[in-house]
Amino acid sequence: MNTPATPTQDPILLHQRDDRGVHTITLNSPRSFNALSLAMLDALQSALDQVGADPGARVVVLAANGKAFCAGHDLKEMRATPEADFYRDLFGRCSKMMLSIQRSPVPVIARVQGLATAAGCQLVAQCDLAVSVDAARFGVNGIDVGLFCATPSVPLSRNMGPKQAMEMLLTGEFITADEARVRGLVNRVVAADGLDDEVASLVSAILAKPREAIAMGKELFYRQRETGLESAYQLAGQTMACNMMHPVAQEGVQAFIEKRTPAWRN
Amino acid sequence: MNTPATPTQDPILLHQRDDRGVHTITLNSPRSFNALSLAMLDALQSALDQVGADPGARVVVLAANGKAFCAGHDLKEMRATPEADFYRDLFGRCSKMMLSIQRSPVPVIARVQGLATAAGCQLVAQCDLAVSVDAARFGVNGIDVGLFCATPSVPLSRNMGPKQAMEMLLTGEFITADEARVRGLVNRVVAADGLDDEVASLVSAILAKPREAIAMGKELFYRQRETGLESAYQLAGQTMACNMMHPVAQEGVQAFIEKRTPAWRN
Amino acid sequence: MNTPATPTQDPILLHQRDDRGVHTITLNSPRSFNALSLAMLDALQSALDQVGADPGARVVVLAANGKAFCAGHDLKEMRATPEADFYRDLFGRCSKMMLSIQRSPVPVIARVQGLATAAGCQLVAQCDLAVSVDAARFGVNGIDVGLFCATPSVPLSRNMGPKQAMEMLLTGEFITADEARVRGLVNRVVAADGLDDEVASLVSAILAKPREAIAMGKELFYRQRETGLESAYQLAGQTMACNMMHPVAQEGVQAFIEKRTPAWRN
Repeated sequence: MNTPATPTQDPILLHQRDDRGVHTITLNSPRSFNALSLAMLDALQSALDQVGADPGARVVVLAANGKAFCAGHDLKEMRATPEADFYRDLFGRCSKMMLSIQRSPVPVIARVQGLATAAGCQLVAQCDLAVSVDAARFGVNGIDVGLFCATPSVPLSRNMGPKQAMEMLLTGEFITADEARVRGLVNRVVAADGLDDEVASLVSAILAKPREAIAMGKELFYRQRETGLESAYQLAGQTMACNMMHPVAQEGVQAFIEKRTPAWRN
Repeated sequence: MNTPATPTQDPILLHQRDDRGVHTITLNSPRSFNALSLAMLDALQSALDQVGADPGARVVVLAANGKAFCAGHDLKEMRATPEADFYRDLFGRCSKMMLSIQRSPVPVIARVQGLATAAGCQLVAQCDLAVSVDAARFGVNGIDVGLFCATPSVPLSRNMGPKQAMEMLLTGEFITADEARVRGLVNRVVAADGLDDEVASLVSAILAKPREAIAMGKELFYRQRETGLESAYQLAGQTMACNMMHPVAQEGVQAFIEKRTPAWRN
Repeated sequence: MNTPATPTQDPILLHQRDDRGVHTITLNSPRSFNALSLAMLDALQSALDQVGADPGARVVVLAANGKAFCAGHDLKEMRATPEADFYRDLFGRCSKMMLSIQRSPVPVIARVQGLATAAGCQLVAQCDLAVSVDAARFGVNGIDVGLFCATPSVPLSRNMGPKQAMEMLLTGEFITADEARVRGLVNRVVAADGLDDEVASLVSAILAKPREAIAMGKELFYRQRETGLESAYQLAGQTMACNMMHPVAQEGVQAFIEKRTPAWRN
């Protein structure tokens, strides 16, 4: 579905960074409903790698142009090469990109302006935070073409209960943005004309905190979830001690005691 | 509480299969509130084994006759043999049956027409999907007779948060069907006269998808939940590649490209 | 923030036990917003150890005096000793105390009469059950002073979904008691003048059940959550058999059969 970018075309991914360290990565293939073609996956991976290499990065906004946020994999491209090696490589690349979101040292916010289906819904599920317009819909409907949304089920089942995830996976039915919020798939739902303000409010809140504490905390958060309680506390205690020894916390706590604003260079 | 089936009595379990591959398994011991006696557990195990051995099976509807869906273990039977070996065997059989639900290659839908308590609530929690009448109530109230619902807590705590599960387990108090839906224990709640239609709509949605993709997906879904994120993605990627190589997905994707209905033999 | 207790001052922790085995442990440092200073942590640990050593203990109510339930760690104390060993020791003690709540043989109910922030919110999250006044607010806002709430994230992420927890951890924003209930952080929310009655109703429900069954069940509940489904069923089946062999269950089941109240010495 996706047309490869040529010099005369718009790039399939837009990547901007402002002077505050806010990276805005925008899926820009509206005619393909921003399908995750190999080209799109590579562009996303490259953008996330750049964020990881930017010591001044503070937050990523993952956005999309057009009516859909993302319609999942590029089915024409998948059909064109019916080979197991090709599919293993494709899903391996996609999973690597998804893991890069979680491993990014900065929070990644999905800005959902429209439909998110299959691996597009997975993309929302994998982000740290998500803001959606009220008209968006969410589905993992690969089963409609005989392809169970196995990889999307990974972050989906970590965002909502098993029965609710299973119903979506088995029936291919869509849920509303409000239902997605109730289930835990998105954080906030707003009217379309309020989307940018709502995303900006989350971005501002994150920019007001020190990067180093967020990086330590985000890494710990996902790691401790995968262990038992005792081990989780051991890991978290080490992070707390390390964070507390860092100048940002020493200054933050001192500022709190002196009832002033911390003097951080954010 | 349960009276063993004799030739002159109704069987304690009814098992029908229609020509679409829909297995309807009905607990049929209303006078015992469909207690999970040894006889009932064995009948359920046998029925689930038959489903597993039926290559044309597509979905299981787990239903019940009478006012209660299922009131849990048969307390009279349990009291009659106060021996550790007996209890270990009993709970071992029950757990094996519960695991068979999750391991079944087809989705299992609980059709909850009334009260579900203790191991009866566990049965609902263990199913892949559940539809309940609005008048049903759910409880894990073994603690009222001094027996903490340990085995029911296994799927219950995988359907809802720990504090909510703990309150039910410690107090023995019941929740309404609506509360069960909000917490994730059931998918849909309807008036009694709409129960069959609601179950039928889920059955129809599942029948419209290819069996092979659902079997691969269901197996993966529960397996990936028990591992860390990276391992989960590796497992899921393998399933996706395998599913994509299958004729049902190749046909499904081709049909999507050609904007036609997939020609599957469901 | 916290002033060490001296002979002329009120103790920082109050610990009462009534003749039913109800332990009420009350944070009593209102001027420090019940900060978890080393002295407070040691007092809590000691109180929980006493509960563990009391064969007649039935339930713990964890309460607090003053406007706040608990405002987390004592930042002045933390700032006064900027040494990694000190912080490791501090968070190690705090985590040990939190683990003692989960390992206590009796249920621990948080009675939340006011603000619960950072490690104070963690304390609520770690309890088995929680009742809150409607005016209470909950936050993990260490990030506001440059200290990501890593240890609070451990029980928080076991009470609610990752995106909801992440939003609280990254922004430091507070949620209402009602939102805390919807997410699973507290069980019940009441007006301030109904708080004691609501806690008392949970206490009464627990006192009506046998201590031994609750102790076995609580231990199993948290253990089985950390394993896969098959292993969880094996552990739970052993607990059920053991519980069923105990006189409290034999009497409870017999009483049920005879339609009378169990003759337990609670």
